[in-house]
Amino acid sequence: MKTYLECIPCFFRQALFAARSATEDEALVKRVLDRVAAQVPHIPMDQPPPEVARGVYAAVRDVTGVSDPFAAHKEESIRNALALSGELRSVVARAEDPLWAAVRIAIAGNVIDLGADPDFDLEAEMGSVRRDRLAIDHYASFQQSVEAARTVLYLGDNAGETVFDRLLIEVLGRDTVYAVRDIPIINDATAEDAERSGIGEAARIISSGCDAPGTLLNRCSRAFLEVFERADVIVSKGQGNFESLSGVEAPVFFLLKTKCPVIARHLGTKNGDTVLKDARLG
Amino acid sequence: MKTYLECIPCFFRQALFAARSATEDEALVKRVLDRVAAQVPHIPMDQPPPEVARGVYAAVRDVTGVSDPFAAHKEESIRNALALSGELRSVVARAEDPLWAAVRIAIAGNVIDLGADPDFDLEAEMGSVRRDRLAIDHYASFQQSVEAARTVLYLGDNAGETVFDRLLIEVLGRDTVYAVRDIPIINDATAEDAERSGIGEAARIISSGCDAPGTLLNRCSRAFLEVFERADVIVSKGQGNFESLSGVEAPVFFLLKTKCPVIARHLGTKNGDTVLKDARLG
Repeated sequence: MKTYLECIPCFFRQALFAARSATEDEALVKRVLDRVAAQVPHIPMDQPPPEVARGVYAAVRDVTGVSDPFAAHKEESIRNALALSGELRSVVARAEDPLWAAVRIAIAGNVIDLGADPDFDLEAEMGSVRRDRLAIDHYASFQQSVEAARTVLYLGDNAGETVFDRLLIEVLGRDTVYAVRDIPIINDATAEDAERSGIGEAARIISSGCDAPGTLLNRCSRAFLEVFERADVIVSKGQGNFESLSGVEAPVFFLLKTKCPVIARHLGTKNGDTVLKDARLG
Repeated sequence: MKTYLECIPCFFRQALFAARSATEDEALVKRVLDRVAAQVPHIPMDQPPPEVARGVYAAVRDVTGVSDPFAAHKEESIRNALALSGELRSVVARAEDPLWAAVRIAIAGNVIDLGADPDFDLEAEMGSVRRDRLAIDHYASFQQSVEAARTVLYLGDNAGETVFDRLLIEVLGRDTVYAVRDIPIINDATAEDAERSGIGEAARIISSGCDAPGTLLNRCSRAFLEVFERADVIVSKGQGNFESLSGVEAPVFFLLKTKCPVIARHLGTKNGDTVLKDARLG
């Protein structure tokens, strides 16, 4: 997916939020915004937004000197998610179709996203997920592909959401690799966050090698690309991964909640809708 | 009121919206955003947001060559407001306190604001205004000041809202000057818009001399400043005028609906609240 002009005000909003999380020095925060402003004329509009976001969050890091402004927030998100996970695990176990239940919970967990909306309500989301329909529902195709698969590559998104990803990985019951960002960016999960969430007990955790809030294949490590090419099924969580991989030729299933009007329009859904999309079904 | 860092993403949002209203050429729209980006390091953060907005909307004008991108929208707003005005005039006439009714309607009309929120609902606003309380209510002081006043200076805000301003001007029953922006900016009323709204039958229309979406005294004409200094009561409509004149030493009453979290915080209200504030009551 390319970058839209609507993304530009949003990059400033994100830079402001991240910079203020890194420092209370308003002059430094302004300097971050000046840096982002200097990037605007050079934004590669034909590239996905995570490519641009790399530069935005690098400006936050460089100017404030804080490499992980959302560290505490990520820890809290994981803690909150772990507190819900026992109950949700029994919901999955009791479900008529545990795979469907785990998919819905994993998508609901995608509401944890500081880049898109810092004011999410995790518990409300978990409640509504069982009532609301998916706006794009390629579950039949997903179920079929999973049944036939030996290996799964699971592309993580936010810290905290990771806890719900583990439930889905367990239900998938496949040889699974869980890929995370190479460095802390927004509240996206790193290897450490994935470990803390218990993913290590259900999958092998690797870094994608990419320092963007998404999975930009041209910036991923060779080790990751080998897993990517061999995986029978790729589960891609969240907007950043969708923005990066939309249109790719691979057995990718996008699980996400739309949290921005641009992506909703791109998908043909309403903002706030939940999606399970088979990349090969166009 | 100074400019806050939160205003910076908002300037980009506004520039995008205005540029897209002026042209369908996305490359031109991008060039507008580049121009605004070039202004960021030089934003006078100690000046009110309308001072910055001058430059933002000048970029839209200069790059697109369109001086009034919201001309059609302003005409439609005036038409819609005129269609409601007969009914609202009888509401005022039948009211126990016609001044109070006209004040509430004039504030409700302030919902018409493309800069802050292009998705306003005028009729819903007119319905709720009679139920909801003002978050800041200096009506007693306003009533007293109006009773003692011989002359009123009324600072207009958006085109369309102007129609409701006329109802209040009629109830005030004072020698009134109605001041408008010097040039088209956002959907703010110009002299032509005020005439079309029927203001000319209730007040003398003048330009403030200011080309910003607000009333920056250091950019107003001498003719306007003379009226400003002599007026017994100044009615200031909307956020832009509030941002410009907050803190000024003059008998100003701010009538507005808060449409941005920064102004709401500055006023100590919630976003979306309605306000009648005596500038002298701090």
